[in-house]
Amino acid sequence: MLERFYVDEADAVRVREADLRANVASIFEKMNVPPEDAVLGADALVTADLRGVETHGVSNMLRAYVAGYNRDEINPTPNLQIVRETAATANMDSDRGLGIIVTPKAMEIAIEKARNTGLGMVTITNGRHLGMASYHAMMALKHDMIGMCMTGCPPSVLPTFGAVPRLGTNPIALAAPAGEEPPFVFDAATSVIAGNKLGLASRLGLDLEPGWVADGDGTPLMDPVPAPRDWAPGSARRYQQLPLGSTREGGSHKGYGLACMVDILSGILAGSAFGMVPGRPNFSHMVAAYNIEAFTEIDQFKSLMDDFLRELKSTPPAPGHERVIVPGQLEVEATEDRQANGIPLHKEVVQWFQDICNELGIAYRLS
Amino acid sequence: MLERFYVDEADAVRVREADLRANVASIFEKMNVPPEDAVLGADALVTADLRGVETHGVSNMLRAYVAGYNRDEINPTPNLQIVRETAATANMDSDRGLGIIVTPKAMEIAIEKARNTGLGMVTITNGRHLGMASYHAMMALKHDMIGMCMTGCPPSVLPTFGAVPRLGTNPIALAAPAGEEPPFVFDAATSVIAGNKLGLASRLGLDLEPGWVADGDGTPLMDPVPAPRDWAPGSARRYQQLPLGSTREGGSHKGYGLACMVDILSGILAGSAFGMVPGRPNFSHMVAAYNIEAFTEIDQFKSLMDDFLRELKSTPPAPGHERVIVPGQLEVEATEDRQANGIPLHKEVVQWFQDICNELGIAYRLS
Repeated sequence: MLERFYVDEADAVRVREADLRANVASIFEKMNVPPEDAVLGADALVTADLRGVETHGVSNMLRAYVAGYNRDEINPTPNLQIVRETAATANMDSDRGLGIIVTPKAMEIAIEKARNTGLGMVTITNGRHLGMASYHAMMALKHDMIGMCMTGCPPSVLPTFGAVPRLGTNPIALAAPAGEEPPFVFDAATSVIAGNKLGLASRLGLDLEPGWVADGDGTPLMDPVPAPRDWAPGSARRYQQLPLGSTREGGSHKGYGLACMVDILSGILAGSAFGMVPGRPNFSHMVAAYNIEAFTEIDQFKSLMDDFLRELKSTPPAPGHERVIVPGQLEVEATEDRQANGIPLHKEVVQWFQDICNELGIAYRLS
Repeated sequence: MLERFYVDEADAVRVREADLRANVASIFEKMNVPPEDAVLGADALVTADLRGVETHGVSNMLRAYVAGYNRDEINPTPNLQIVRETAATANMDSDRGLGIIVTPKAMEIAIEKARNTGLGMVTITNGRHLGMASYHAMMALKHDMIGMCMTGCPPSVLPTFGAVPRLGTNPIALAAPAGEEPPFVFDAATSVIAGNKLGLASRLGLDLEPGWVADGDGTPLMDPVPAPRDWAPGSARRYQQLPLGSTREGGSHKGYGLACMVDILSGILAGSAFGMVPGRPNFSHMVAAYNIEAFTEIDQFKSLMDDFLRELKSTPPAPGHERVIVPGQLEVEATEDRQANGIPLHKEVVQWFQDICNELGIAYRLS
């Protein structure tokens, strides 16, 4: 059972967290990102790698971000503007700023509003790639709040019964603090599988599982197929992504409906756009904060969360499985390992770091 | 392709909407529900039947509600108390009031708060069955708001890799207004299939589809199996319900995580309880309203929603399918049919109405 896609250790070099942070921040600075924002961007990426979410860490994303800055698709010095605001809400035009850097600023606003009114929510238009959605949701934790984050992505997922992609992988993240247990952190695409995971499967030469993709005509493929070697976001595709549930009988109308919900609560509510607008290199995000104290005693909430998570973890497992895992648990385990032993990067990724550092004239720090 | 479970017309009697409303309200009144609440309860149930959501209409639910009142598990005259409140939030103790009747009152509060602050959210503890979640979410539509509703139900669904149910079917509903198109209305359990749908499959003698259920030991059954004839909520079960995604490879950790999210945002945030608390005949609900005007122009939003829904509906279909459907569309079609031609009820259900009317000494109106 594949719990996560991790890079094969045989192909990997372990690098120190601090070195990776410094190198990533230097690269962002060379893209004309202000120093403070460069540190923030590095934190978002390296946090994903620490948590074992390699799909949203440096390996998959930093190259794309550099290309985006170089093509002037991403604005390194965006002028963030609040275009509409109420006591609990704001709508922000992020001026093509990179999502991993602008979304934390929107989340700070949501948290401040939740402190005052109980809830806070900020929609973000004119955005670029969000990164790992749970990064933004988790910002609420230290304020004793629940955090939520969603993003409407460009179309890659079929609606139920459809032959043409209409929806993004549109993830939903929710983070809630516990007492003694690690926080609950859920973060999942509303497709069967995240687009970046298909990219990773392609790179690792794995099979795609039954129900992960449809054929070119929209027919769900319910047997394993080899991952196409050329899978990349936006590339011509032999296979198409399916919503969570895979088929109507399997509940794909639910994954499809949840993906629509994300488009509505991010892009459409912001008066902006939605995934299927043609040729759109545009993302709309939303963040929300729920102030626990507005509903109940914080200690009571955390104690219930501990009970909840422990009950789940102590569920007797089904045959062939060792344990029941709670959302966020594998990420805590990965973080402990990677903080102690370094972050595994594929040799090719390390080589890319060497090359880009040479090219940009900055110090290479990963060895 | 089974779009919905509808009662077989050969076994059905079509009854007039007005007659059904009147009969249901009379039954609630005989349960000591005040007249205004009886009309509200009838509206919630009959709206579900009009929309073709037979699982949450009179056939499946009214009997259970009558039994609940008779066993004094449901309080016909609850004392609703706001136990904590801020500008955008409230936490309500619903004193064992029936969810279909108390939740609309909580939603009115959420809507009023959203009018003032942009967002409103109310958690409801000490609750009883919610009914069709979208009924409450749809209340936001006429206020030009987006409505949301979730409910944490008693445990019937396995966590991924688990052998024992820990989570409710925990549905999520979202309703958003459009301009010329019917509103977007999503309403789905976070299990592969709603518990009541299994009850209906049992009554209709249908097979359960691959991935709908696990065996007693928690192993997902990936081939069709006949529906057990004795399926009923709370009954001893040969099969167990699986989260949306069915297996880990199919993304069941996503359905599982979403079910947890519902428990957290309803019961735990309210400082109350969660699905797996043993022996709990208790539900915790949440409703939320998002004031569209707080984020963007309402006309702009509705026009984007029209574009969004039309693009989805005009998606070329995959082989073997006639069309792509948007969430809420089948329910509008069912409503048009049933308002014109009557609501089909299984003969057994009609017989039950005759019997209960005799028993309670009220006029039987369905023929």
